[in-house]
Amino acid sequence: MSSTKKLIIYNDPNSAPCRAVVSFCKLNNIPFELVETSVAKMQVFQPEFKKINPIQQIPAIKEIDTQTGEEWTLGESHAILRYLINTRQLPDHWYPKEPRLRAKVDQYLDWHHTFLRQGSSIFVFMKLFAPKLFQKTLPEEQLKFQFTYLTRSLSLMERWLAQSKYLCGEQMTIADISAACELIQTKFIAFDLAKWPKVQAWLKHMVEENPTILEVHQPFLKFASELTGQAKL
Amino acid sequence: MSSTKKLIIYNDPNSAPCRAVVSFCKLNNIPFELVETSVAKMQVFQPEFKKINPIQQIPAIKEIDTQTGEEWTLGESHAILRYLINTRQLPDHWYPKEPRLRAKVDQYLDWHHTFLRQGSSIFVFMKLFAPKLFQKTLPEEQLKFQFTYLTRSLSLMERWLAQSKYLCGEQMTIADISAACELIQTKFIAFDLAKWPKVQAWLKHMVEENPTILEVHQPFLKFASELTGQAKL
Repeated sequence: MSSTKKLIIYNDPNSAPCRAVVSFCKLNNIPFELVETSVAKMQVFQPEFKKINPIQQIPAIKEIDTQTGEEWTLGESHAILRYLINTRQLPDHWYPKEPRLRAKVDQYLDWHHTFLRQGSSIFVFMKLFAPKLFQKTLPEEQLKFQFTYLTRSLSLMERWLAQSKYLCGEQMTIADISAACELIQTKFIAFDLAKWPKVQAWLKHMVEENPTILEVHQPFLKFASELTGQAKL
Repeated sequence: MSSTKKLIIYNDPNSAPCRAVVSFCKLNNIPFELVETSVAKMQVFQPEFKKINPIQQIPAIKEIDTQTGEEWTLGESHAILRYLINTRQLPDHWYPKEPRLRAKVDQYLDWHHTFLRQGSSIFVFMKLFAPKLFQKTLPEEQLKFQFTYLTRSLSLMERWLAQSKYLCGEQMTIADISAACELIQTKFIAFDLAKWPKVQAWLKHMVEENPTILEVHQPFLKFASELTGQAKL
């Protein structure tokens, strides 16, 4: 990637997908600038942000050619991670070129949207943050439905982690980054991971092996601790 | 891909992601064998299928090396599509190598999981099929919530299709295949696409340009017509 390209990340530190993209950039020394874009303040629905990301979600990125002024934008955290890998010289382990190794990472990334994210971020948000931030509660039955996604997701992750050190093999991939950034927040619903010992050990290892991830989480951890009265991670 | 590899697709014709994978294989003359795996009969939850796809969803594929007997499996329709592209010599337009074109396809494929699929397949299934097949109904409020995903998804697709002939540019990609296979079923909730004229025209064009897609849909269309009493597509 030419050094004439400037990378901007539209970021809310309380968003797990944002934390995944920012962590990945920091772990790989990819230079970027942050533009804080608050979900709680509904900034993603404002017309100027809709021009940047018509999906109206974060994270989004903008690349600016500093010579020509040409701008290009992209949404969806997993698409952003793949794009950064396709355009930067990065270690192969993140998203291996070997087709079967890559396929398992792709499988995880697709599964993530409809399982772990339902079970972690969306459940945690609905259970904990929405009532305090928006005075909005979901019926208990619906919360229970989403809670089953969390336990089903953890059981499958436990099975994957019984086969290999990381979620998709013996090396850390973008699947691990995305998953870890989702799962850290279960701390705030006092959720005990002890029933899934391999997941618990993997998450501990992910955080200890990559202090950058924890560093990126600090603003969120502070916010969540203040909101919930729970201890910090 | 060596001709010693046999491809098996675990398939339920009533599943949109299955129809996308089967359509893609047929459009590209990729040989495969089908193993019918019924969701309605709960076959995805049986132990023998769990060994093939621990995610317990369809489609899944198995590749068998006919010389060594070695077997390899994969789940998630978009991961399967990417894997087929990465291992077969196929036209570039399906999933362009150029990073920014590819990124827009990846962006669509990620968005698809949490928007169009919520709004189309899951809404249609809950609204129409679940009551008849499983005597299960969702509260009207929850259905309304999912219905908004359908209309929001269509509005965004309309915007994308105002910019280019296909969802991610001037050429047909796997995003179009995945989206078309989801959207065809809105026919069975008597949903009028006229408010989204570009989507309506694109879907008509997709089906007419690719008679294979409609052919793959025949078992589903027959099943849905019988179940709902609606006319065939």
